[in-house]
Amino acid sequence: MSYTVGIVMGSDNDMEVMQEAVLALREFGIKSEVIVSSAHRTPERTLEWTKTARERGLSAIIAGAGAAAHLAGVVSSKTTLPVVAVPISATSLNGLDALLSTVQMPAGVPVACMAIGKAGARNAGIYVAMMLGMNDEEIARKLDQYKLDMATKVMEKSKRIEQEWNQ
Amino acid sequence: MSYTVGIVMGSDNDMEVMQEAVLALREFGIKSEVIVSSAHRTPERTLEWTKTARERGLSAIIAGAGAAAHLAGVVSSKTTLPVVAVPISATSLNGLDALLSTVQMPAGVPVACMAIGKAGARNAGIYVAMMLGMNDEEIARKLDQYKLDMATKVMEKSKRIEQEWNQ
Amino acid sequence: MSYTVGIVMGSDNDMEVMQEAVLALREFGIKSEVIVSSAHRTPERTLEWTKTARERGLSAIIAGAGAAAHLAGVVSSKTTLPVVAVPISATSLNGLDALLSTVQMPAGVPVACMAIGKAGARNAGIYVAMMLGMNDEEIARKLDQYKLDMATKVMEKSKRIEQEWNQ
Amino acid sequence: MSYTVGIVMGSDNDMEVMQEAVLALREFGIKSEVIVSSAHRTPERTLEWTKTARERGLSAIIAGAGAAAHLAGVVSSKTTLPVVAVPISATSLNGLDALLSTVQMPAGVPVACMAIGKAGARNAGIYVAMMLGMNDEEIARKLDQYKLDMATKVMEKSKRIEQEWNQ
Amino acid sequence: MSYTVGIVMGSDNDMEVMQEAVLALREFGIKSEVIVSSAHRTPERTLEWTKTARERGLSAIIAGAGAAAHLAGVVSSKTTLPVVAVPISATSLNGLDALLSTVQMPAGVPVACMAIGKAGARNAGIYVAMMLGMNDEEIARKLDQYKLDMATKVMEKSKRIEQEWNQ
Amino acid sequence: MSYTVGIVMGSDNDMEVMQEAVLALREFGIKSEVIVSSAHRTPERTLEWTKTARERGLSAIIAGAGAAAHLAGVVSSKTTLPVVAVPISATSLNGLDALLSTVQMPAGVPVACMAIGKAGARNAGIYVAMMLGMNDEEIARKLDQYKLDMATKVMEKSKRIEQEWNQ
Amino acid sequence: MSYTVGIVMGSDNDMEVMQEAVLALREFGIKSEVIVSSAHRTPERTLEWTKTARERGLSAIIAGAGAAAHLAGVVSSKTTLPVVAVPISATSLNGLDALLSTVQMPAGVPVACMAIGKAGARNAGIYVAMMLGMNDEEIARKLDQYKLDMATKVMEKSKRIEQEWNQ
Amino acid sequence: MSYTVGIVMGSDNDMEVMQEAVLALREFGIKSEVIVSSAHRTPERTLEWTKTARERGLSAIIAGAGAAAHLAGVVSSKTTLPVVAVPISATSLNGLDALLSTVQMPAGVPVACMAIGKAGARNAGIYVAMMLGMNDEEIARKLDQYKLDMATKVMEKSKRIEQEWNQ
Repeated sequence: MSYTVGIVMGSDNDMEVMQEAVLALREFGIKSEVIVSSAHRTPERTLEWTKTARERGLSAIIAGAGAAAHLAGVVSSKTTLPVVAVPISATSLNGLDALLSTVQMPAGVPVACMAIGKAGARNAGIYVAMMLGMNDEEIARKLDQYKLDMATKVMEKSKRIEQEWNQ
Repeated sequence: MSYTVGIVMGSDNDMEVMQEAVLALREFGIKSEVIVSSAHRTPERTLEWTKTARERGLSAIIAGAGAAAHLAGVVSSKTTLPVVAVPISATSLNGLDALLSTVQMPAGVPVACMAIGKAGARNAGIYVAMMLGMNDEEIARKLDQYKLDMATKVMEKSKRIEQEWNQ
Repeated sequence: MSYTVGIVMGSDNDMEVMQEAVLALREFGIKSEVIVSSAHRTPERTLEWTKTARERGLSAIIAGAGAAAHLAGVVSSKTTLPVVAVPISATSLNGLDALLSTVQMPAGVPVACMAIGKAGARNAGIYVAMMLGMNDEEIARKLDQYKLDMATKVMEKSKRIEQEWNQ
Repeated sequence: MSYTVGIVMGSDNDMEVMQEAVLALREFGIKSEVIVSSAHRTPERTLEWTKTARERGLSAIIAGAGAAAHLAGVVSSKTTLPVVAVPISATSLNGLDALLSTVQMPAGVPVACMAIGKAGARNAGIYVAMMLGMNDEEIARKLDQYKLDMATKVMEKSKRIEQEWNQ
Repeated sequence: MSYTVGIVMGSDNDMEVMQEAVLALREFGIKSEVIVSSAHRTPERTLEWTKTARERGLSAIIAGAGAAAHLAGVVSSKTTLPVVAVPISATSLNGLDALLSTVQMPAGVPVACMAIGKAGARNAGIYVAMMLGMNDEEIARKLDQYKLDMATKVMEKSKRIEQEWNQ
Repeated sequence: MSYTVGIVMGSDNDMEVMQEAVLALREFGIKSEVIVSSAHRTPERTLEWTKTARERGLSAIIAGAGAAAHLAGVVSSKTTLPVVAVPISATSLNGLDALLSTVQMPAGVPVACMAIGKAGARNAGIYVAMMLGMNDEEIARKLDQYKLDMATKVMEKSKRIEQEWNQ
Repeated sequence: MSYTVGIVMGSDNDMEVMQEAVLALREFGIKSEVIVSSAHRTPERTLEWTKTARERGLSAIIAGAGAAAHLAGVVSSKTTLPVVAVPISATSLNGLDALLSTVQMPAGVPVACMAIGKAGARNAGIYVAMMLGMNDEEIARKLDQYKLDMATKVMEKSKRIEQEWNQ
Repeated sequence: MSYTVGIVMGSDNDMEVMQEAVLALREFGIKSEVIVSSAHRTPERTLEWTKTARERGLSAIIAGAGAAAHLAGVVSSKTTLPVVAVPISATSLNGLDALLSTVQMPAGVPVACMAIGKAGARNAGIYVAMMLGMNDEEIARKLDQYKLDMATKVMEKSKRIEQEWNQ
């Protein structure tokens, strides 16, 4: 089956971080519909894009924003698709502001918060694969393989470190 | 002249804090239009109420919210009226989440952040009086008087403390 | 269709918070398989329960823990099911320790972090419904209804506040 | 109509940040009266400048300071003009000290706190325009236009990102 | 010789904490001149009281305040007497705001910051005794005795604990 | 074999927390030598007690303190015995001050920091058992049993929760 | 006698920090068995390596990890050997996430937390020497010598500073 | 009269920061006795130097340290001279650890905490001048002059900024 995930970010500067999500999705054969749209600067466009997301065929939404990061919460207010959020470090507070603005959502309007920055963006892509893998055997298999590959890489790195340090 | 200020909060629980704003406005003869409307649970109503605020004759908007406090930012996205924001302590993080979600607004969409909780709500009311006092002599005079009264109260309290402790 | 979600927590004390997840799932007709199992005190049982989760028919896993909250991360290491995490305030640091231990997962092993405490637990249940609603029309419809009900409640509360304060 | 806003900062180093406020005001045709004056090093001058601000014709005051940022509070103590505050990151604590020193004003003496740094300084200028726009149709129109321009820029940036990433 | 120390606090509520300073000073035979005067609500009175402090014969000043605690810094701007500051926990942020507002003074205007709350207020009194003890043999002797008494009390408490727990 | 561990705390108030260490040690048949001695109030006694610890036959030292918690570091400066530290929440900062004062020891003078408060004190006792178990078969066996018992308790609690919630 | 200590880290990037532990151990004649193994990416390998650590002859384990640093806790769940933990700064939060994830272990599963980063890694090595020095006279003597050397170095540095600044 | 102040720091690296104190003292004609001595690495030397400080003729002590900054507290435990403390940013936590370790001293053993880093070191020197100025007319006069010079410099800088920006 073919899936598309909406990826929205508050500023084009965020693309450096959010491309990790696009690339992670590609590893699982999942397409992205990327858009720059702000909760504050283009609220109507953000809401419109969100409201029609399910009917346009999007499976889930990944939202990335920094500072007072309201984007994921605002998106979640207008859809019942699962929203995955990436807080981005964009101020002198190193992303703590974005993290708390994103994760502390009140009861009733959940957002799935990932880690701050690139690790979080990459994980957002993988997490969407996991959600799709609930019902899609092929993606579930790819996730199994992904876990194996990740373990293999750790072991290769370990070997290099062990050879250098354990003689 | 007669003024009305919109006061919006995310939950009816917030009224305990936000009544301080209503009461402060009353001291300056300013009316309030109070509403409970959430950025996340009733986004359309919030935006509709905000978009028509100026034409309904509101002079400014005070927004109070806790947790991932997006309300003031969302309101500010839909109006050019000045928005005064009150972060409310509503989670185990003691309002630090609401403060950072409120104050760290990105460039272009300002929100005037007050202190966390009741002191902030009271100050929100007084701050609106100050904004109106830019053009209204009567409110400006009331603000002068308010400052004098506040100083008098401090001096009365000081007298009691001085009598008890400086003998 | 019938779904079951695994709910694991590090201590029986966490049930006061985590029951919010169970109750939220019930609102969507989703069953829970609740278990107390610690990442540190019963690591093998936790891993065994996790590894067999998919074949036992679980659709997703919700994990709640406080302090150095490793449970969700450890669970995520052993399954490709999506893991939703609830940081719980269980120490003098008010849940900041649990939040950072939960949300700052390294690239490759995502965990969907909710807010600290009861709001987060309730949202974990709703978020699972959203994930299932990606493929299940009935749950998707229930989510739409849920959003409407939530908005209605806000408006009822608003009416009461408006009547009391806007005369 | 012609307006002038007082802009005071604690150190000439702060001008790099505070020029954002001057430039934002200029976009709305508002003049600035810039001054370097410290709450601690030149307290009398600061108070004198503040006390006569209204009679000199200033419409509002923007105050920027770092570290234990007392300037906005001290200015607010001597005027009933609205004070907009910009916390500046000037120590190893990344502006958290300036933020808390600025935003946590006690009841009775409000200060409108913006975000830390340049985003906050720019927003301070825009916020003053909003306050003036309460009574000035022309500025209100410029603010509407400003919001449109801001949205247009976001959409242009979005187009570039979409072309690069959504093929 | 006889000494008097000025003790100023922003609110009469602060006296519960600041009495610890008065009582500590009394243990060393030092008198206090207590006053409630706010940096923000009674700025002129605060500055006047401060400016004449040395000529009134005060030896030093202890200033206690909570929230955006500007009092000690403002006092220090108008005197060359040493200022000892006590940050007070008066908001939901548990005194972190008062601490950073007090301790992070910019170069040129020092303030001697003590711990948050009662421990800090008591230490402020003792610290003034230490400053006076630089030149006053009798106070220096009392400080030596004070240290001995403090050690004796610890040892008595230790004995009780030892008897109960080391059998 | 018989072992004794030194347990030192800065104030007798800390005994409520530190008794957890004594009780945990008793579970492994390890004796305690409890003492109240402060890094600041009885520095000589603290150093003397520490310097002679090894020759008095102590196997290790557990140190508990709150606020600016210097005790463990000061003790570690005078002995080559391993020091286990328990930060205690004793101020309005909830133990964050004690934690950072304890754990951030500079290179060369290590201290083994446990969690804040009672959990940390209990773990300090168990950790000493682990250190002794490096060389003592009996204690190592007790630790194995302890781990089994802990797992059994978790499973019993799980059963109760499962019966109540999984029908 | 000859000792070997297990050193495990979550990523090969951590070796830059963790080599400080290896080098410190070498100063005391203690060997290391270094391995890269993640709590999340290679959980089985981590547990297997840990479970057999005592029988392979390891005396203790040093675990270093960043971000949501679960490694030391996970290792501690599977062994009764003492685990020394090094939180590593690997995200925009400067190691605060790793510190809290590491130090706030719940009662029953202790981990000895060192300072963040290189100072902590070096101290981990020295702390293991202290644990071994409980029973090994030679290592105890080396530790005494180490303390002397460290003091000597401080005094040499002091001399240079004194000559430059105290004339 | 001639005065000497003891300046002690935990590491020679701290001299870059602490030289600000030496230079500030020189501006007031006060000599320094600089020493590198650690609370942890050279505890005896630190205590010996402190204990004899008064009889050697030192008027006060300035102590600077980073990380778990115990130096000022340890020094204060052994003297009744006033101790001025400078927390130094020496770890990834940006000096927050040093600040809390320094300022949160328990009741009975006061330390006068300055700001983190160079501003704090400079202020430590000025603060000592203030303490000496309590009894020394000449230093008091120099402090008056110092305040005037500082104000003059601010006004000169203001002029440059005003000329550039207010045309």
